[in-house]
Amino acid sequence: MQNAPIRFDSDYLEGCLPEILDELQSTNLMQTPGYGEDEICAEARSLIREACAAPEAEVHFLVGGTQTNATVISAMLRPWQGVLCAESGHINVHETGAIEHGGHKVLALPSSDGKISAAQVKDALAGHSADPVREHMVQPGMVYISFPTEKGTLYSKQELTALSQVCRSFGVPLFLDGARLGYGLAAPDCDLTLPDIASLTDVFYIGGTKQGALFGEAVVFTRKDLCPNFRYAIKQNGGMLAKGRLLGLQFRELFRGGLYLRAAGGAIQKALRIREALERSGYDFLVRSGTNQQFPVMNSAQIEFLRRRFSFEDWEPLADGRTAVRFCTSWATTDSAVDELIASLGQAAGL
Amino acid sequence: MQNAPIRFDSDYLEGCLPEILDELQSTNLMQTPGYGEDEICAEARSLIREACAAPEAEVHFLVGGTQTNATVISAMLRPWQGVLCAESGHINVHETGAIEHGGHKVLALPSSDGKISAAQVKDALAGHSADPVREHMVQPGMVYISFPTEKGTLYSKQELTALSQVCRSFGVPLFLDGARLGYGLAAPDCDLTLPDIASLTDVFYIGGTKQGALFGEAVVFTRKDLCPNFRYAIKQNGGMLAKGRLLGLQFRELFRGGLYLRAAGGAIQKALRIREALERSGYDFLVRSGTNQQFPVMNSAQIEFLRRRFSFEDWEPLADGRTAVRFCTSWATTDSAVDELIASLGQAAGL
Amino acid sequence: MQNAPIRFDSDYLEGCLPEILDELQSTNLMQTPGYGEDEICAEARSLIREACAAPEAEVHFLVGGTQTNATVISAMLRPWQGVLCAESGHINVHETGAIEHGGHKVLALPSSDGKISAAQVKDALAGHSADPVREHMVQPGMVYISFPTEKGTLYSKQELTALSQVCRSFGVPLFLDGARLGYGLAAPDCDLTLPDIASLTDVFYIGGTKQGALFGEAVVFTRKDLCPNFRYAIKQNGGMLAKGRLLGLQFRELFRGGLYLRAAGGAIQKALRIREALERSGYDFLVRSGTNQQFPVMNSAQIEFLRRRFSFEDWEPLADGRTAVRFCTSWATTDSAVDELIASLGQAAGL
Amino acid sequence: MQNAPIRFDSDYLEGCLPEILDELQSTNLMQTPGYGEDEICAEARSLIREACAAPEAEVHFLVGGTQTNATVISAMLRPWQGVLCAESGHINVHETGAIEHGGHKVLALPSSDGKISAAQVKDALAGHSADPVREHMVQPGMVYISFPTEKGTLYSKQELTALSQVCRSFGVPLFLDGARLGYGLAAPDCDLTLPDIASLTDVFYIGGTKQGALFGEAVVFTRKDLCPNFRYAIKQNGGMLAKGRLLGLQFRELFRGGLYLRAAGGAIQKALRIREALERSGYDFLVRSGTNQQFPVMNSAQIEFLRRRFSFEDWEPLADGRTAVRFCTSWATTDSAVDELIASLGQAAGL
Repeated sequence: MQNAPIRFDSDYLEGCLPEILDELQSTNLMQTPGYGEDEICAEARSLIREACAAPEAEVHFLVGGTQTNATVISAMLRPWQGVLCAESGHINVHETGAIEHGGHKVLALPSSDGKISAAQVKDALAGHSADPVREHMVQPGMVYISFPTEKGTLYSKQELTALSQVCRSFGVPLFLDGARLGYGLAAPDCDLTLPDIASLTDVFYIGGTKQGALFGEAVVFTRKDLCPNFRYAIKQNGGMLAKGRLLGLQFRELFRGGLYLRAAGGAIQKALRIREALERSGYDFLVRSGTNQQFPVMNSAQIEFLRRRFSFEDWEPLADGRTAVRFCTSWATTDSAVDELIASLGQAAGL
Repeated sequence: MQNAPIRFDSDYLEGCLPEILDELQSTNLMQTPGYGEDEICAEARSLIREACAAPEAEVHFLVGGTQTNATVISAMLRPWQGVLCAESGHINVHETGAIEHGGHKVLALPSSDGKISAAQVKDALAGHSADPVREHMVQPGMVYISFPTEKGTLYSKQELTALSQVCRSFGVPLFLDGARLGYGLAAPDCDLTLPDIASLTDVFYIGGTKQGALFGEAVVFTRKDLCPNFRYAIKQNGGMLAKGRLLGLQFRELFRGGLYLRAAGGAIQKALRIREALERSGYDFLVRSGTNQQFPVMNSAQIEFLRRRFSFEDWEPLADGRTAVRFCTSWATTDSAVDELIASLGQAAGL
Repeated sequence: MQNAPIRFDSDYLEGCLPEILDELQSTNLMQTPGYGEDEICAEARSLIREACAAPEAEVHFLVGGTQTNATVISAMLRPWQGVLCAESGHINVHETGAIEHGGHKVLALPSSDGKISAAQVKDALAGHSADPVREHMVQPGMVYISFPTEKGTLYSKQELTALSQVCRSFGVPLFLDGARLGYGLAAPDCDLTLPDIASLTDVFYIGGTKQGALFGEAVVFTRKDLCPNFRYAIKQNGGMLAKGRLLGLQFRELFRGGLYLRAAGGAIQKALRIREALERSGYDFLVRSGTNQQFPVMNSAQIEFLRRRFSFEDWEPLADGRTAVRFCTSWATTDSAVDELIASLGQAAGL
Repeated sequence: MQNAPIRFDSDYLEGCLPEILDELQSTNLMQTPGYGEDEICAEARSLIREACAAPEAEVHFLVGGTQTNATVISAMLRPWQGVLCAESGHINVHETGAIEHGGHKVLALPSSDGKISAAQVKDALAGHSADPVREHMVQPGMVYISFPTEKGTLYSKQELTALSQVCRSFGVPLFLDGARLGYGLAAPDCDLTLPDIASLTDVFYIGGTKQGALFGEAVVFTRKDLCPNFRYAIKQNGGMLAKGRLLGLQFRELFRGGLYLRAAGGAIQKALRIREALERSGYDFLVRSGTNQQFPVMNSAQIEFLRRRFSFEDWEPLADGRTAVRFCTSWATTDSAVDELIASLGQAAGL
């Protein structure tokens, strides 16, 4: 297809890291029990616990992000509880109401950069407790954040620590959506490590789908007994893959020898090349991001010009008539694609 | 692992048909849009419509069976409706209440062989309509059957036609769970074809997970507009795979050149060899099955003997102290495994 | 309306005990806070705790039975849990799937007389725990019984004690639906008291609707902290009456000076007169009941004859062509209505 | 209770209109079938259809507002649909997530005065339809407004007509919460009639609880077949009162001879006396309201002074440190209570 665009629309456009394909090939005819109770999954769990420095953590594998968010949230909340989250949060906007389908309100907090602060969360939790008619309102029972956020921003160690402290002081679990976790951890301005995340949150997940796996998300309950019977919840929510070893296999590969962060690092490097080119050419940014997502602001002539060769997402129309767009890199982005994009960005700059 | 058992416990013990692995390899770095809106999925949908002789059918790909059942059922029912099904039906027993989690009662009908009859369904539907306090009861809004059933039995063309007529006369959709559809269609005593199923049901699915794919189920709404907005339902229920082309790719391969039925046929052949061996050795059967699942009855000495070398499922304890067990074959079962099993079944017979 | 039938179809045909009407009148213009936080409700709660000899009990008022069952059950279960109950149980048959609407499966146990035994419950709980694929099945998380049952039968103290012990040994709450509690406690063959029920169950409710109130059910959590935040659940399930004092007022009246049991006793006396008349005339019974519900078996000529003057419910068709019917008395049944019925039953006996 | 405050906190502080009490008395021992299938309910339905000039309307009686909102909304939406509403809407803020418990997202639109405009709704509906990733978002499937709003404001005939037109052009039902409908219709600046509301909305309800009944809301589906099987939904949601005639009786009384609007008019008159007194004394208002709810702004000294004798609600803290409070009148408010309040408001003005 000579005219196929070069795609920068998202980070799930290709298949998987070749190491994973090799493993699929070499284990294909091996017989294992189903539903994640095989040895490959066990090994993958061990590797993840080790990478998190969380020997007591409970690790579960699910297939996709929406499913994971819905399963974790409904498994941890009581029926009258809701989940605090940034108004731009994935669960609030882009999951077709999966959280509400499970019976829970998403309690959206205002946010310009995709993050919510410890102060906001504290106000919400304290405000609810103090309200004389609180029983007429949804009780905040969990805090959901994403890392990186929808807007490619990152919580600093200080910010995450403050959030963690507020949550713990109110006895409310902190859940971190890490669909793009590696792209956050590998960003140059990130001061958090995987063990930090495991020690500051109650539950989080390590995204596979967008980070080199065919699919799969690894949920980590960071301490024992935070959610007994979670396997029932996975099954009930349709997330228990019959051939569960496929999930184990992918995460074993990602966490054996550091492939997960290495592959994310490659994507970041390419994203930073694009960011530098955008800066050089004088584009504005919706938000400054050091992750694999870049959000430059363009006029319609620029967008039209670039669309002849590349595909990328319209992200947000701005008040001045311009549009913030999104370019994503991934583990699969090639240097030549980036070279071509950079050249075109330069040409478009003058339009 | 020298001592690993030879497994006959289920039909999802191995990876996938080599043709599928090859396709994964050759398409791996291709860039496609996500969520099933790619060309590979489009081709797979065409092939399935063709195989079903149902040019107006709407085809959707989901990841697993529980998810598919929950999504189809909740998308088609009104809140106060339930789904009629055999008491042994998968949705009634083995899905951790996923249907109820979506708000609907499973209305179980007695069944000794896993099937329900047109007469039973008619009684239930007519009985409900005639009940003066029907508004205090769940309204039957759908009929769910599986083909083959949990017990490896098959509806005949006559039986399915009768069910279809009852359902249509009451305006209630007929939903066929075909997680093992191919193993039914390839059974020697099956007088139904895929086009028959497409013309007699309203919605059904073609199982991939147990039939040579890594995972995946293809839902077929057999006529137009039976369930508008079903893609919203898939997304909400966590079944919309980001890299949707992986589903399309597998079903394209299965339905290109007849691989689906050919692979199922191989499994059936091996199951029939096992059945003949069991018959020769004088074992009783829980139920006579021509599919890939065989349910011989054994005493505990026989079971213990066979477990030294093979793994298989305890299915149902019988009143006389014996146990019905299950041996499953699949597309991946080897002749040598079957040879070994047959030899051992002969030895165990005398115990 | 000269031809209006004399109604024995149910125990919610009339308004309320005159004492309650008087209270409505005398408190009508009093101003109180809403939602059950008024002094009248507080007094009613005290009287109920006293009558139950359960000083730590938490008492809540809801409007109706289906609402109460749905609220209590969904407030106490985790999403993957279901509730064990007799297959004839109200929640399984006559609540339009309200429990499933809240996400939970009703796990029906066979029962011929409306009761379930400690042995049945133990088998179900132990069987689930021991099942190697239990995570694929709904986890039993509560036991629901009714007293009296749908069939007018009663648990003995020994039976209830055994049930209670099984539940407590498995850590599963025992919930008793007492929509007709008083009619059970006032029955001649009842050896249980209200304090017994409070000490043997975890949560139960005292029915008002069928026992002399206009409406209302009093939920009693028999110990502290069994269900924190239950008021949120009431509100969310639409059971928090704005003018909550109406509920308090009715229960205060019912539990001040023993009106509740006294009114029930009157109904029982009338039911027993009907039972004796039926026995004298040689009618068979579906089940022997000492409560306000009587279930004689009649042929169609008898039913037709009686329907000219009385209304009553067809309960269950029998295999021999006859029908079990139901006659209900209530606090409002008059002696003259009973006299007339008895006379007609005698006349019908010969048909 | 000499020191009991004079309450202006809400409009559900007292019992009911004396006419209703009289009816309760005179019908108390009458026998009727249950669940709203009695003649009294039938008469009430006729009277309401007549008052609405909507001869084809379907009328149902439920017990309370939250229940009614949850039942109507979940009965009319498909699982992936949500309901558009003002961010201050009752269903979004004060129903403990009852809508989400039923599986649906409340899609909140910004609103300063409690109203939403036709333009806002059109943007939301058109925006959703045009969105290329709309399947990842909740589909707006209904528009919810209240009349009067939470803030005592009213839609004009022109505004409601515009909303109605937008809804109809998109095929989305318009649902009007009329918990205080009469207080809106009786307001001096209201240019809408009950027949207008019936012709411009698809479904609405006439509040009884806050307007002189003990409890009860009358749902009106303004045309035939808008929601078949709604009685199943009522039962499933716990809103089907066993002694349904109590609801019919109250609405028959309210709609026989114009009592409903007459009683509302009395409350409005008293509210306007309070408004005038507030204006005379120079208080600011949060919002100008002609309904039974008045929202003056006060400083803490004024609030403290008034609280010695009256109870009323803190409504909203203002940026300048003052607080908007709410005074409610009702059908039961006495002239002498208003006189006393007015006197005190004058005294407090100088504080």
